[in-house]
Order: sequence, then C-alpha cells, then structure tokens
Amino acid sequence: MAIFNNKNKQALELGFGSKNYTNRVRFLDGEGNVNVHRAGMGIKNLDIYHWLITTSMLNLIFVILAGYVTINLIFAGIYFFVGPQNFGGLDAVTSAQQFINLFFFSAQTITTLGYGHIYPIGNAASIAAAVESLLGLLSFALATGVLYGRFSRPKAHLLYSNNLLISPYKNGKGIMFRIANKKQYELIESEAMLTITLNNPETHKREFFNLKLEISRINFLPLSWTIVHPVDEESPLLGLTINDLEKRDVEIIILIKAINDTYSQTVYSRKSYKVEDIVENAKFKPLTPEANKNGRVRLVVTDIHLYDLVF
Amino acid sequence: MAIFNNKNKQALELGFGSKNYTNRVRFLDGEGNVNVHRAGMGIKNLDIYHWLITTSMLNLIFVILAGYVTINLIFAGIYFFVGPQNFGGLDAVTSAQQFINLFFFSAQTITTLGYGHIYPIGNAASIAAAVESLLGLLSFALATGVLYGRFSRPKAHLLYSNNLLISPYKNGKGIMFRIANKKQYELIESEAMLTITLNNPETHKREFFNLKLEISRINFLPLSWTIVHPVDEESPLLGLTINDLEKRDVEIIILIKAINDTYSQTVYSRKSYKVEDIVENAKFKPLTPEANKNGRVRLVVTDIHLYDLVF
Amino acid sequence: MAIFNNKNKQALELGFGSKNYTNRVRFLDGEGNVNVHRAGMGIKNLDIYHWLITTSMLNLIFVILAGYVTINLIFAGIYFFVGPQNFGGLDAVTSAQQFINLFFFSAQTITTLGYGHIYPIGNAASIAAAVESLLGLLSFALATGVLYGRFSRPKAHLLYSNNLLISPYKNGKGIMFRIANKKQYELIESEAMLTITLNNPETHKREFFNLKLEISRINFLPLSWTIVHPVDEESPLLGLTINDLEKRDVEIIILIKAINDTYSQTVYSRKSYKVEDIVENAKFKPLTPEANKNGRVRLVVTDIHLYDLVF
Amino acid sequence: MAIFNNKNKQALELGFGSKNYTNRVRFLDGEGNVNVHRAGMGIKNLDIYHWLITTSMLNLIFVILAGYVTINLIFAGIYFFVGPQNFGGLDAVTSAQQFINLFFFSAQTITTLGYGHIYPIGNAASIAAAVESLLGLLSFALATGVLYGRFSRPKAHLLYSNNLLISPYKNGKGIMFRIANKKQYELIESEAMLTITLNNPETHKREFFNLKLEISRINFLPLSWTIVHPVDEESPLLGLTINDLEKRDVEIIILIKAINDTYSQTVYSRKSYKVEDIVENAKFKPLTPEANKNGRVRLVVTDIHLYDLVF
Repeated sequence: MAIFNNKNKQALELGFGSKNYTNRVRFLDGEGNVNVHRAGMGIKNLDIYHWLITTSMLNLIFVILAGYVTINLIFAGIYFFVGPQNFGGLDAVTSAQQFINLFFFSAQTITTLGYGHIYPIGNAASIAAAVESLLGLLSFALATGVLYGRFSRPKAHLLYSNNLLISPYKNGKGIMFRIANKKQYELIESEAMLTITLNNPETHKREFFNLKLEISRINFLPLSWTIVHPVDEESPLLGLTINDLEKRDVEIIILIKAINDTYSQTVYSRKSYKVEDIVENAKFKPLTPEANKNGRVRLVVTDIHLYDLVF
Repeated sequence: MAIFNNKNKQALELGFGSKNYTNRVRFLDGEGNVNVHRAGMGIKNLDIYHWLITTSMLNLIFVILAGYVTINLIFAGIYFFVGPQNFGGLDAVTSAQQFINLFFFSAQTITTLGYGHIYPIGNAASIAAAVESLLGLLSFALATGVLYGRFSRPKAHLLYSNNLLISPYKNGKGIMFRIANKKQYELIESEAMLTITLNNPETHKREFFNLKLEISRINFLPLSWTIVHPVDEESPLLGLTINDLEKRDVEIIILIKAINDTYSQTVYSRKSYKVEDIVENAKFKPLTPEANKNGRVRLVVTDIHLYDLVF
Repeated sequence: MAIFNNKNKQALELGFGSKNYTNRVRFLDGEGNVNVHRAGMGIKNLDIYHWLITTSMLNLIFVILAGYVTINLIFAGIYFFVGPQNFGGLDAVTSAQQFINLFFFSAQTITTLGYGHIYPIGNAASIAAAVESLLGLLSFALATGVLYGRFSRPKAHLLYSNNLLISPYKNGKGIMFRIANKKQYELIESEAMLTITLNNPETHKREFFNLKLEISRINFLPLSWTIVHPVDEESPLLGLTINDLEKRDVEIIILIKAINDTYSQTVYSRKSYKVEDIVENAKFKPLTPEANKNGRVRLVVTDIHLYDLVF
Repeated sequence: MAIFNNKNKQALELGFGSKNYTNRVRFLDGEGNVNVHRAGMGIKNLDIYHWLITTSMLNLIFVILAGYVTINLIFAGIYFFVGPQNFGGLDAVTSAQQFINLFFFSAQTITTLGYGHIYPIGNAASIAAAVESLLGLLSFALATGVLYGRFSRPKAHLLYSNNLLISPYKNGKGIMFRIANKKQYELIESEAMLTITLNNPETHKREFFNLKLEISRINFLPLSWTIVHPVDEESPLLGLTINDLEKRDVEIIILIKAINDTYSQTVYSRKSYKVEDIVENAKFKPLTPEANKNGRVRLVVTDIHLYDLVF
C-alpha cells in the first residue's frame, strides 16, 4: 500500500503504483482494515481461526449455537439409526419423540452432562456415545481457545477525531488530527506514521509520500495527542488546494503503534481520511481536563472531535 | 502526561500543558496507575476483560460466586415455569422446595455434573437443560481464559524505596531512589525513564522535563539498583529548594521497563514521588548481601528503604 | 547456516564452512525448514509439545484417538482385574462383554460423562475411577493447550513466486522474486534478508554471502512485494553464469520477518531457491489489481508466479 | 550482577561491588539461575504461579495428586458432618465406610463426573455439592492454565560445551566455548553477551567487565556456534594466569538471547563458567556434519564438548 520509510518511486515495487485505478480507490476502509481482497488461492485463502477471533460476538454465538444443534442432529440420527431399542430409559413411543429424546441424549453426551436417565446399552450405541463425548471435550477445548484468543487479542481502542484539519501552524499551515484512548488501560511508547497517496495527473500513476511529523513518538497517552504534519517546503502538500486533493483522489493513511501496558502487547491502529473528512481553516478546541480534589484528572474523550473555524 | 524524549514545549500537544490545574494534580496514583478518568464514551468505555484480569482476586471470586448463584436462580425460575411435573425424581411437595431442588438441578446441569437423580422429562425442560449445559461449558471456557490471563499477565514486582533522596553526588547533588525485585524470577535488560512535572509560576502552565540518568539501563537486576539523576547544569532542578518544589506541585514520574525472563515478557512498572516523599541531605545505607558457603547470595530487599542523614 | 550481517569468513565459526560436503546439500527443505538433524542427545532431543503443535491435523487426530482407545483399554483392564462384581449395573454375562462394558464405563469416566447406569461399588473400583476422572480432566487440559497453541501459533502465510528470475535491472541485471500474503490478515513492517551459499572450487569450502537488497523493509504488504538484489560491483554473483551456479551447488536462502497485526505477533517465513528454480532473461508480469466501485482492490495472488521471457 | 553495556565502576550501583565476599561467590548456579535469595518480603516473596510453571513435572504431579486427595478429604468431612442420611444411594453401614463412600462421591462431584448412584438429598448436602462442583471447574481451569503455561513457556534448549578453552587465536589467545541447539526447532537472531567478574586484590572489591566478542550475533544456529573473546590489548584478561583467575574467584557469565521461531518468542539462556571449567592450551575439535543423499545434514551435538590439547 505504501512505504513509510522510502521514497515515492518505490511504491511501484509494491504493485500499487503501476496504474491509475479507473474507479476511486479507498485503501483503508472505515474501520481501518486494508481494503484488499486476495483471491486465487481457493479454500487455502480461508483462515477459520482468524475469522472466529475477529468476527462479531453475535456471529460467534450464532456459529456456536448452529454447530451445537447440527452436531446433536447428526448424533441423534446416528443413535436413531443404531436403534432406539439400544438405549435404556428411552420410553418414548412415536419415532419422532424417540428422535427428539435421542437429540437430548446427544446434548447430554456432548456436554459430558450425562444425567443417565437415558443410557446406551448395545455396543454400537456405546461406541457412538464414547466418540461423541470425546468430540465434545475437544470442541469445548477449541471454544476455550477461541474465547481466550478473542479476549486476550491485542487491541488499541483509539478514538480518532472525525476530521483532519488544515490549521494555521507556525508561519504557515499544518494538517492535524487528534487521538485519544477510549479505554481505561494505558498506552505507552505510542508512535505515529502518516502516508499520503495521490494520483499524479501527469504520469497517471498513483504516488505515495511519507508525511513528516512534528512529534512522531510519545511515552504516555493519558489524555489526547494532536498529531501534526507541518506543510513546509518539503511537504508534498505544499501548494495543493482542497480541490486538487479531491481531483487527485487523496487518501491520508495513518498507522499508530503503541504498547498496551496491561498485557505488554504491541498494538496497532489504522485509520484513513479521505477528502470529505478534511476541514480547512479550522483549529481544534483546547481540551479542558479537570482535576478533582484527589488530583484525579477527568477528560471527556469525545471532545477531541470539536474544532473552531478560524479566519 | 509527559514526553520523555522531547522538549518541554511539546507537553502542550499532550493536552496537559494548557492550563494550571486549580487543584493539586497527581498524575500517577499510589500504585502507579495513571490517575485519569476518561469519560464521554458511555458503555463503550467499559472493558470487562481488562477488569476481570486486573481486579483483586477477592473481587473476582465474588463476581464468579454471584454469577453462579444468579444464573442458577434464572434457570431454576425457567424450570419452575416449565413445570416441576416435567422433571423425573423431583419428589418435593411444596413449591418452595421444588424451586430449591430445581436450583440444585440447575447447578448440576451448568457444571455438567449431571447426577441424574433429577432429570428433565418433557421437551421444554430438556431444551432448557441442553442450553444451560452449553452455557455452562462456555462460561467455564471464559473462566479458564480469565484465570490463565490473570496468572500469565506480565508483571514487574518492583519494590521502590519509600523515599527519593537528595544526596551529595560527585561535586554537587543528585536525586536518587532504589529499586529491587520482590520475587525470585529475574528481570533483565531493565531500563529507567524519569520525568518531572512542575507548575511554571510565570506562565501558569504545567511543564514537563525529562531527567537525565547516570545509568539508564542495566542487564541484570539481581540485587538492587540505585537510579541517580545528577543535578547538574542541564538539570531543571538546579537551584530549586524543597519549598519551591512544594509550591510548584512537583511530581517525579518513573517508568521502568524490563524483561521477565521466565516468560520472556516485557514488563512495565510505574511510580511517582510527590514532595512529601523527598528527603534532603540523606544517603542510602549500603546493602550488605552475604554469600553462604555455596556461593548463594542473600539480600533483604526491604533494606532498600534505609538511609542515613548527612550533614 | 549463514550469517546475514557478517562477512564470509565468519561462516567458519558456524561449523558449516569447514568442509565441502561430498553430497549436494540443501540447507532449507521445500517447506523452508532447516534441513539439519541434531543427534546425540538421545531422548532429550525429543520435544513432544513442539511436535504436537507443528504436526499435521491428521496426525494429531490420530494421536488423540489412539491415546483415547489405549487409555480406555488400560483402565478397562484395571477394572476387569478388580473384578466385574465390583460394578453396579454391569449385567453382561460373558467375560468378553464384561470387558467391553468396562471399556465403555472407562470412556464415560475419563470424559467425566458419568451416565451412572454402570458405577463402581467397591473401594478399589472407586479409587481407580477417581484416578481416571482426574487423569481425564488433566488430559483434556493438555488437549486444550495444544489446540490453542496450534491455532494461536504465529504464522506467516506467504506465497513465494515459483521462480527466482535473473532480469534486466537498471543498467545491469538483478535477481528477483515476488511474495504475497495468502490470507486476509495484514502483515506489517516486513523485512527480507537474503543469503547465498556456494562451494568455492579453489578452497573446497562452502562460502556464505549476504545479498544486498534494493529495498529490505516495507511497512505494508497489501498486494505483492518484488524483492530485488542488484547484481552490481559488490555482488558475489557478478560474472557467474547459471552453469557456474549449478557446479557450485548454489542455494539462495530467504528469511522474511513481519508482524501479523491480528495478533501483533512477529512471524518468520523461510524459503530457499536452488539452481533449478532460477530463470534467466525473464521479467515478472505486472500485477493488475482492480478496484471495484467501493474502492476495494482485488488481487489474484497466484499471478505472482507469472513472468515473460525477455531477449 | 553485572553491567554488560557499561564500565566497571558502575557495578557499585548494582550493590554487588561494595564488598569482597568472605566466601566464594557463584552468581549463576549450575543451571544458569541467578544464585540470589531475596528475603524480607515475607509471603509477598511467594510466587505460586511461577513455581507451578517452573518446577519439575514430578513435583507438579505430586502437588496435583496431594491437592486432589486433600480437597476430597475436606469435602468428605463436610458431607459426613452434614449427615450420611442426606445422601441417596449411600448404603454403607459403618461410619468408616460411609466416610470412604462420601470421599468417592466428592471425587465424582469435583471432577463433575456425577455417576449419580450416590446423590445429595437435603439442601445442605446439595449446597455443598454445588459449591464443590464449581470449585472443581475453577481448579481445572487453573490446571489448564498451568499446563499450557508450562508447555508454551519460551525456552532455549542450548547445550554449552563443558569447558571454556583458552586457545591460540590469531597472533595471541582467545577464550572460547561452543553452543548448540539440543532440539529440532530453530533459533534465529541469536545474540551473546559475556561478563567477567573478579575480585580486585588491591581494592578488595568485586569488579565486573564486559568481554568483547569476535561475533556477537548470528542469524541462524543450525549447527553450532563457537563464541570467541580475543584476549587483546583491551581485554581485562590480558596477562592473567589460571592461578590469578582462581585466586580472584573468577566467574564468566554468559547471556544468550535468541528467537525460537516456532513460537516467535524471544528466549534467554544463561550459563557461567568457574575456574575449574577452564582448559588452557586447547582447541575445539572441528565438527563433522555430514549431508545424506537428500542434502539433509546430520550433526551429533554432543561433539561440541570435544577438544584437543595443543602445545
């Protein structure tokens, strides 16, 4: 997508620079995910664990429930095929009710609940039950791993200001945005990297530039951090208007790296701003954190969105 | 909170420097936690896993017990609503005792104990029991993750000397404190970073300065480490008295980074000293580790608090 | 095997350079594993957990099933030895069927299923069952760890181009290959290191050289990355023909290091090319990623294998 | 213990240099553990999880078995106190046998086995069983964490040569030892750091020096690595005899840092050599790894101990 540490021409090597996309491109989607679909590997592209770890909790619950019902249906079918007469305590009369009771027997077996008011008598039934209980334990071993993996996954819960401002800065201008930590844990050793990508109207190629930052690394992030790129002589933005940015399909790509000190994990957060997120001649409102009588400081993190227009 | 690697003016960018707090501020509380409350995100501020991992063991046990009782009450209610006649082996006569027995049946189901002297007969009762046993397994999967997460969480068990001393150092003075590892595992590649924050009485702004250390990194920490900031020409402390420090609401913020070599985890420890922790004209007593006849060295770590006054 | 950061003579210290192997050597096998067998430690060489984590899923399932059957056979034997009369509900008549039923009882015990239609009466039988259920829980604790360890293991799913090309590059030649990520997660901060190893026909020793790269580090790997070593004045390849490379048993060893940002894990990937993988006078076909109307880019990753001959 | 990156005088700050220990000191014991006992914190020194993770498997099994028996004895006592008449299916006559059967009932409850041929009737018995089954699940959650923690713990299984040799090296001498990986996984980016500690007979203080290495970092460790400190002008060893080393209670402390690429974990290994491990005028025998017809190299790792005397 972009090379932060290198010069523009090297973007070619990444396979992005070889053409001017006909459609507008958005390299990072709204949630900061890289907006690329990698095809061609068939089912080898699938990564089930990755999906289970990153999908929404609702999806996960649905998958678990659906899997639980399905596997019980399969084993109820097996038990029914083996024959209801091979189960003690199964006093249902109709086939349908026998199947239903074997479904419940299956659920009691796969969870290793084992009330025992229904129990296998014959060898075939006992073998199927022995297999099902093993399968149950392994499945719940997997579920344990997935749930632990989800909760312990390194995450940076960063809030980005809704807008990227073009503000007066020193004797010229600067582009700036603010970030804050949404959660109560601490982020330390935070680093920011900015890349801008533009179409070059002359070469009809997409160019990538690294944007220099006034401060690119801070040790704590207790309140908010205003990240500033000065539009100076060396900036690729010098002399460009909002109109130019729109025509050239600008995208400003942000990568934040920090350490979540609860787990000592390095965490990453990405975000991109498109031209519609940029506000000219605006300045962020100063935050007003207040200390209570115990010296504890309170900050309303959503205030980082606020700005004033300047003329 | 502070920028270790940068100059004072940059503190402004962190949102701390914009005002002189009316109340005294304490940026790190007594346990080294950042003393900031981040509001404004509503329930999105909540981080249940983080709380479960970091809360006291007593709180955790209480939450588990309360959850266990609550969920059994809910399922006992469901079973009672379904009807006690749908449960085999439930020979209680009064409604109250039926409810109590269904509560125990619920406990036997959610833990997948399943004695089976009480068992579901009807379909509704069986479905509820099948759901409860699944829920039980998932809950205990979660509990496994939380317990593992708590125990395997990277931690540095550092003991800090109670006081920060202003001692004679070379031809001038130095501020110094000592740390030691409370536990038997080893910390390697330890690094220390010190920041001081003061109110500036002229600008009415809070300033942050990085304090240079005589040694900022050591490879082993078998006994104790005395961390020294020389008060030399470049030190922001030069010429300030204890009185000045108090008036200007000083706070000295310490960040220690090390590797716990049992788990190869990078661990962090924080601490802050306020003016009441500072002792002038004092020197740490030398530690007296002694080797036994096998060459094993014994150290009383609490001796790091000890100091002598010097005149 | 090779020293990336050092000069050739130092290969001697690694124990590789001391002789010219009589047979052809392949230091990395087809899957990128180091092709060395370390003998001499006896069973201390074994690393069961490592095997369970890295073996194929099929092998693992086989081991689990075989272990399950074996342990149930052992406990069935113990229960049979204790005496079938010590088990309530065991109404089989023949010894064979008694043994089979005790096998199923064992399975119900080790999984903590415990239907209870068969149950231990005497003390010896009860003790054996108490031990077996404890063993069961610990085994499944282990299985949980192994399954979690497998799924959460850091992996880089890199696709390497089938061939290493010798292409026109600037005013001379370059050797180049392409990599792409097979999966949908992102790799960031990717770094590449190349080493070449050749027999020296004069000294009859195997030499190792580090190959300089045009770009050795990129921040994102959304599409593909063409890694290029320019064959310039400083290159150990200058002046060598394909024939020379074959005679001198060349192997080009690649180590890629990146961060899998789903888990914030550093991952490694290795690959080696032998002379049969090298294609002269060829150029990689440009990739043609296309953006859809939402700005999402689609790439067929297997296209990285494609090249054109140039004359 | 030692400062790798700094000069000798700084050892004082670590609390080691303040005295010349009366007894001989061994800073690292035979297994590379730091030979320091940290006292003074009372039970806050305890670190149960650390012990469970690092103790021998035999100790762990003993602790688990002892805990299992103890907790079942406690609950058997509670059940017995509640009254055997509160348990269905408990048909023992003597008190002793009732207690024994309640012990087995406890085992069936804590493992959530729950055969159900014995079951609680009264409320008190049911409550105790509900608590015990919860406790059982939490205990096995803990056991799962401990077993996973043990197996997944980052380890470097390095074999060090039994001796440290003083060998001819270039125009002078060098001290050298060899390491090899005992296991089949790979170690990459290995780094070595050497410190020497000696008593200073003049100042009666213990001094620490960093020893420069010919090569301090290699990218792969497929076979063996001979780590060499040249005894040149800058070496603190220049001019010292074996006799001097003995008198001054020398200890050479080694810290190896590497990445285990199966788990992408940074691992550490430590070792110390005392004077009795040093051999003068000796040279390591070259290793003779041999490639089979598939190009796979075989190495007998224990050959790293072998050396020849030179005169």
